[in-house]
Amino acid sequence: MAARERALVELATDACWGLLQGSRVGLLAWTAPDGPTVRPVNLAVAGRTITFRTAAGSAMTQQVDDSLVALQVGATDGVERTGWSVLVRGTASVSFSSEEASPAEPWLRGARPVTVTVHAREVTGRVLVDDEGQIPHG
Amino acid sequence: MAARERALVELATDACWGLLQGSRVGLLAWTAPDGPTVRPVNLAVAGRTITFRTAAGSAMTQQVDDSLVALQVGATDGVERTGWSVLVRGTASVSFSSEEASPAEPWLRGARPVTVTVHAREVTGRVLVDDEGQIPHG
Repeated sequence: MAARERALVELATDACWGLLQGSRVGLLAWTAPDGPTVRPVNLAVAGRTITFRTAAGSAMTQQVDDSLVALQVGATDGVERTGWSVLVRGTASVSFSSEEASPAEPWLRGARPVTVTVHAREVTGRVLVDDEGQIPHG
Repeated sequence: MAARERALVELATDACWGLLQGSRVGLLAWTAPDGPTVRPVNLAVAGRTITFRTAAGSAMTQQVDDSLVALQVGATDGVERTGWSVLVRGTASVSFSSEEASPAEPWLRGARPVTVTVHAREVTGRVLVDDEGQIPHG
């Protein structure tokens, strides 16, 4: 079986935001005191504002305020070897104000009163394409 | 419609390694000079050795050697609100030796002669469960 090799095509910024706006789950990466770490989050992306909710006592709440972060959303299909990935890099801010609460809907039960906002400085994205430069379909 | 709230259950270390061994795509997070960043990678996980291949001139090749990294694998289903996530934290090493080449099969065309090995110091994982403590099925 011939390997189906793919190439990457950069996505335009507007396309990246469109994919972000359609995403309900992302991965937040930040540098904890003991090194890089990653957590899945349930996002709300309204316009170009990215927020999510977390617990008051979480490591994230304690560590990401006013810090550099990266947020990734994407999808891959290992059978068809399709996929895309959008990466937001910027800073995070943490708010305990209920007036600024994120509209994100956490899947997890339990109080999540803290809102984290990701302030994007750089938004990039890439999609896998086939030999013809097309996005493969299954 | 009632929200289907989930809880998180910690996965045992052996279960985390089983999920890693079944994963072909992961996300590598590291701290670049300008802050945290994330890249999708095509993994090979043999036993407890995690490797992948990258290009000689990539930012990853230049930045991750002997550095702290985090590697995440997982899956989520936004309709059923199911999902799991495994996080490996440790250090990376970079090898240009063809004798140490990773068996990982990159989806991308083009030479990827550099092997990155992730040396795990901490492996944790969590899975979403329903009100009965069961993994939801679609």
